[in-house]
Amino acid sequence: QHVVVCGYGTKGRSAIRALLANGTDKEHVVVVDPSPTAIEEANSLGFTGIVGDAGRADVLRRTSIEKARAVVVAANRDDTAVLITLTVRQLNPSVPITASVREEENASLLRQSGADSVITSSSTSGRLLGLATDSPRVVAVVEDLLTAGHGLDLVQRTVTSAEVGMGARQLRDVVLSVTRGGRTLRFDDAAIGTLQSEDVLVVVRSN
Amino acid sequence: QHVVVCGYGTKGRSAIRALLANGTDKEHVVVVDPSPTAIEEANSLGFTGIVGDAGRADVLRRTSIEKARAVVVAANRDDTAVLITLTVRQLNPSVPITASVREEENASLLRQSGADSVITSSSTSGRLLGLATDSPRVVAVVEDLLTAGHGLDLVQRTVTSAEVGMGARQLRDVVLSVTRGGRTLRFDDAAIGTLQSEDVLVVVRSN
Ligand SMILES: [Ca+2]
Ligand SMILES: [Ca+2]
Repeated sequence: QHVVVCGYGTKGRSAIRALLANGTDKEHVVVVDPSPTAIEEANSLGFTGIVGDAGRADVLRRTSIEKARAVVVAANRDDTAVLITLTVRQLNPSVPITASVREEENASLLRQSGADSVITSSSTSGRLLGLATDSPRVVAVVEDLLTAGHGLDLVQRTVTSAEVGMGARQLRDVVLSVTRGGRTLRFDDAAIGTLQSEDVLVVVRSN
Repeated sequence: QHVVVCGYGTKGRSAIRALLANGTDKEHVVVVDPSPTAIEEANSLGFTGIVGDAGRADVLRRTSIEKARAVVVAANRDDTAVLITLTVRQLNPSVPITASVREEENASLLRQSGADSVITSSSTSGRLLGLATDSPRVVAVVEDLLTAGHGLDLVQRTVTSAEVGMGARQLRDVVLSVTRGGRTLRFDDAAIGTLQSEDVLVVVRSN
């Protein structure tokens, strides 16, 4: 039921905001951080805070990691992220782990350590830096897309029964991609034809 | 004509890839980094590399900063980013500066130092971490959107003459926002009506 978030810095806090905006209850957020003041703040906001190093098995066991529905690794250093991921994977072989690293060269090490999804901060912000130079409005749009609950949101969802049989561009939401039978098709791919039940969409929704 | 990129780590390299994909010639990229091996690599790829600390005026002057069309600050540390931004602004009061910081609390300091556009890496990657937990496909879509040249691209452009008079959802590109007279409207805002010349769009384009 619960999500374990390792690291309560800027990254961990942003991750939690995104989790809450997407429907996770704050009672189901468990935060681990070595800083007692950070954990005090997490507790005061209604999360379950645990002071300690998430790279240590005895600390992770206190989060009931074996029953977690997901783990977010939001460490400040890449070596710390690897150690946490390895330890989580040892204690729970099947929980989905989402982790972030700073450097691209460490992304594959993180996958090798057991992370299912890896965010490379410096590549992502580098791309945004380059884009922003000639397209300053794009940065505001990306920030909006990634911040759920107001303005534009990027959302993954399945097709509703009312949408089955419609074209990808006839929906109220703006469809960007359709995943069907393991294949992901872009919105303008003729192979989409009409939407089928069980299609998974990535859409832009306007609130 | 040229863009000065301060920092040739993962972030700076990603920024340059984005600049090239958006039409900047490699002859117009000037890279500053303290590492001679990094600069050697930059030179071998056809950029103009300068070894030195971009926070020093004498180093920045060697980039012809006073004639640059844009500056990208891709430093690894937030204090370095602030120092570079202040020095650039001192030497060129009007050049657009795009900068990145790790921590949210430093974003306002960077704006105060003269940056026009600020990317906060840890907030952005934190949001992606949170989103990825429940919507793993969203991460791949975001990476695709931010990587120009193939798949889906996020693009800022003006309305073409053929598009004037059309509705925002009738274009081949998927329109996300329309900026008109300083106001930015979301794709489903009734106030858009039909597109007007001089409207600036942020669109998703499929290659
Ligand atoms: Ca939003
Ligand atoms: Ca792309």
